[in-house]
Amino acid sequence: METNHTFTNEIWDVAIVGGGVSGIYSGWRLINSSSSKSEILRDWAAKRPDGKLKIGVFERSSRIGGRLLSLTPPGMPNMRAELGAMHYTSNQILLRSLIENKLHLKTYDFPGSYPENILYLRGVHLREQDLSDPEKVPYNMQWHEQRKSASELVAAAIEQILPGAKNIPASQWHEVKQTALFDGVKLYQQGFSNVLNRVMSNEAYEFIRYAGGFDTILSNWNAADAIAWYLAYFGPDAQYMGLVDGFESVALKLKDEFVKAGGEVHLNCELRSFNTCTLEDNTTGIELRFQNNSTVRCRRLILAMPRRSLELLDRTNSILDPNNVEVRQMIESVSPQPLLKIFLCYENPWWQAAKVHSGKSNTDLPVRQCYYFGTEGDKSGADKNNRNSLMMASYDDGHSRNYWIGMRRQQTIEQPENFQRNQTVADRTLDFDYSQWQKYLPSAAIVNELQRQLKEIHGLKYITDPYDAAYMDWGADPFGGAYNLWKIHAKSWEIIPKMIQPVAEMPVYICGEAYCDNQGWVDGALQNAELMLQTHFQLHPPDWLLSP
Amino acid sequence: METNHTFTNEIWDVAIVGGGVSGIYSGWRLINSSSSKSEILRDWAAKRPDGKLKIGVFERSSRIGGRLLSLTPPGMPNMRAELGAMHYTSNQILLRSLIENKLHLKTYDFPGSYPENILYLRGVHLREQDLSDPEKVPYNMQWHEQRKSASELVAAAIEQILPGAKNIPASQWHEVKQTALFDGVKLYQQGFSNVLNRVMSNEAYEFIRYAGGFDTILSNWNAADAIAWYLAYFGPDAQYMGLVDGFESVALKLKDEFVKAGGEVHLNCELRSFNTCTLEDNTTGIELRFQNNSTVRCRRLILAMPRRSLELLDRTNSILDPNNVEVRQMIESVSPQPLLKIFLCYENPWWQAAKVHSGKSNTDLPVRQCYYFGTEGDKSGADKNNRNSLMMASYDDGHSRNYWIGMRRQQTIEQPENFQRNQTVADRTLDFDYSQWQKYLPSAAIVNELQRQLKEIHGLKYITDPYDAAYMDWGADPFGGAYNLWKIHAKSWEIIPKMIQPVAEMPVYICGEAYCDNQGWVDGALQNAELMLQTHFQLHPPDWLLSP
Repeated sequence: METNHTFTNEIWDVAIVGGGVSGIYSGWRLINSSSSKSEILRDWAAKRPDGKLKIGVFERSSRIGGRLLSLTPPGMPNMRAELGAMHYTSNQILLRSLIENKLHLKTYDFPGSYPENILYLRGVHLREQDLSDPEKVPYNMQWHEQRKSASELVAAAIEQILPGAKNIPASQWHEVKQTALFDGVKLYQQGFSNVLNRVMSNEAYEFIRYAGGFDTILSNWNAADAIAWYLAYFGPDAQYMGLVDGFESVALKLKDEFVKAGGEVHLNCELRSFNTCTLEDNTTGIELRFQNNSTVRCRRLILAMPRRSLELLDRTNSILDPNNVEVRQMIESVSPQPLLKIFLCYENPWWQAAKVHSGKSNTDLPVRQCYYFGTEGDKSGADKNNRNSLMMASYDDGHSRNYWIGMRRQQTIEQPENFQRNQTVADRTLDFDYSQWQKYLPSAAIVNELQRQLKEIHGLKYITDPYDAAYMDWGADPFGGAYNLWKIHAKSWEIIPKMIQPVAEMPVYICGEAYCDNQGWVDGALQNAELMLQTHFQLHPPDWLLSP
Repeated sequence: METNHTFTNEIWDVAIVGGGVSGIYSGWRLINSSSSKSEILRDWAAKRPDGKLKIGVFERSSRIGGRLLSLTPPGMPNMRAELGAMHYTSNQILLRSLIENKLHLKTYDFPGSYPENILYLRGVHLREQDLSDPEKVPYNMQWHEQRKSASELVAAAIEQILPGAKNIPASQWHEVKQTALFDGVKLYQQGFSNVLNRVMSNEAYEFIRYAGGFDTILSNWNAADAIAWYLAYFGPDAQYMGLVDGFESVALKLKDEFVKAGGEVHLNCELRSFNTCTLEDNTTGIELRFQNNSTVRCRRLILAMPRRSLELLDRTNSILDPNNVEVRQMIESVSPQPLLKIFLCYENPWWQAAKVHSGKSNTDLPVRQCYYFGTEGDKSGADKNNRNSLMMASYDDGHSRNYWIGMRRQQTIEQPENFQRNQTVADRTLDFDYSQWQKYLPSAAIVNELQRQLKEIHGLKYITDPYDAAYMDWGADPFGGAYNLWKIHAKSWEIIPKMIQPVAEMPVYICGEAYCDNQGWVDGALQNAELMLQTHFQLHPPDWLLSP
């Protein structure tokens, strides 16, 4: 896909590599701040004939958005298959302000958990409301662990590990992460699954994994970061919001405004290496080399990339040199987390036969979680007679991921994935452009196996065949994971402020979701970009922030 | 640990990198065959003033043995803590012949499964014999899946996947792997856990993982290789043997004989890179460069290393060049499998209070498997009054591995692992050399948590404190795994013969466990070395082979 970009010798003020949300946000913030009080930006702009900063976003793939990926499903023009990020929470002030107060994007309440939703565990069909009856729940839990939902059980465990944790204000966690103890040992030196297993039975731990639906967030990552993270975003009271035009629209609108303000976006530009160079004005700059050997020189480089993408670059500079132990340990202080999502399109919401309508159901089958995204005709502005319906048929962030990956075809040109779409149904949408959607087609084997498991989970003998499908594995390169989590022993409070400029003498800055306080959330990626922009580019906080 | 080896300019006939069992075996075979019918070896030897081949084994660590690691526990001079390989089977003719007919090492029957052994699953205590009563077994299995052991269930599933498989003679598997179909698709293009889940309930699959004790062998690796492998070595009828002096003694005896015959062994020599060079006689040779920059030139290089060790070398030659797609795909056609073992030493066999004596117990707690290695005084030649007893307290080859890794201390010089040994007990062995054992000491947190789980698994309120402990994680570098498994789509029958000399014009040979037909077994590693030696060094089959 690499096109033959070649660039002039002109020096860029800021080159941003990575067109995910933190990269495009950084470009948008910088270009809109050039007439601000930032001396650096004013000086650079003053040197330009047109008085405008020269800022470019260079992106490896053919699209802007990174891990925000919202596809319009064929036959459902008013719905979005969120193959990447899908919701945010009301306490994420920076992102919420950007969406609601600056970009003015339409939002909706993302469905939560409903009493009638299914838990199919250990071969037993339950509804969420059945958790109140321990006789029905096939887990051999302690008496005090019974009658609780998965998130209530985690909340109770956290209260045992760090009493009063749920009342710690956000501003104090920076201190608490450094000092909190459990059983005489610093919490940040312990693993989350280790401390959970110290205060709950193994059966309760198995229950919270399968009834809750998630593996990674209960895995053995840094317990101090995990507890702060869980309480903020995953507790029983969490309220989620989605975007009507898809989460990707945040990145796309930022891109449009960035380009309108004079920023440049270059797609299909894969960075291979970078290193310092001396610019004409005798300052230290950075030279970027892309896969096609074309080069770009800039005053400052922003790497808006997660850990795995950084590690795929040539190690020919003092940031990525394996012998630079301090930076290498910082880079390796987080673990990329695998995650796979599969969407299916149906002609009708067959799941209503099992008396489920919205939200999600959880299971210990490899499907793990399925989300009922709903029916086209029920969306505002849609054709009421269109009953086409969308399901996220699997959300898999743990070891079952290999189960689905194993059913892909071997990826060769002669053997593309072979799920046969029913275009007669899909073509009801006039002029639908399949070019994006079909990049994410799964194999027939995956779809057949999903159908088999969905029947079993819902206890239905018959369900409609899907007419289309889409699949994304975020564990593959260049992402390496859907998000990143701090490792045990990592001192996130020390690494975060260092990582935004890892080598003092090098004008290279790193931002994004990987090394932030709110990993796995767009808000965390943007907060980290703000930290970098305010610390090293003298930007003032945004003037469109809502009050908490 | 790198010592300052420097080597003369003399050309080595064969340099072998890797002092694991396949490396030292290759050296031993070559040096003992120099007067044989192999023209190559005769010619090389003829060029030497002393008429003897110059063969060296270069090993990164300070010991020979690789993934054979048998420690003598303090206080138990007649026992061995097998931190690496621990048994072989009677149908592994090459290894059995070597042990019994050539090296004449003492063996014993490795304990199997006993009716009284414990299965602690889903919070329920069972003994193996209780599996005959489905009312006691806390898995919601189909009626035809009940009353079976884990290995009987896998055998029944294999019979559904490939009817008659158990009667296929070993000689036919080469053909069967290429042609066998399941549900119309080549078996080698499917994953083992995928096909198992097609023929058994999810509950039965969960049962075989936890009641059987192993995750990796039931994971989603190449189904054709998995079925052949399982039937050969893991079926209900498998008979295992161990070595009285430890499995490591195979490698150590080969080393002694190799050195006695004139071979050289160099420890603490870490290979960094290799490449072709032209030797004085105008033939193409190989130059090796070690971490201390010393070099060695040789006619031929044997890399007796697994996948991860190969990948840690500099990629500055045509075998490891990432742009050599064919070789890269071969290297990546196997997945290293993590595995962690922890041994505990006690003053008495406390487990007898739970009426278990030998073999192993399985659980879904992170311990997963514990093996009762027995009591010193019961071994032949031992002091009958010595009741010190050894347990492999955890064997963990799956996702619970991170549970134990999370309880290690951060590895710095200031913070060594902190389990406090009781040397008063251990010192009963006069002149015990702690220097090897103490390299493998776990943290106090790991030992405390093991004790907690062992009490729960055995239903005992009190168990003795251990007086010593040893721990080994084979997932760490340079191994990357305890063994390797073929990936889905890999054509092992094509890769194995190519991998022993991956680039035709380069005199570099690869052997060992990673790319063989019997992965995870010493016999497989030796068979692979034989294939390389007979194909490319003109060696004849060993004259000490027993008949099957």
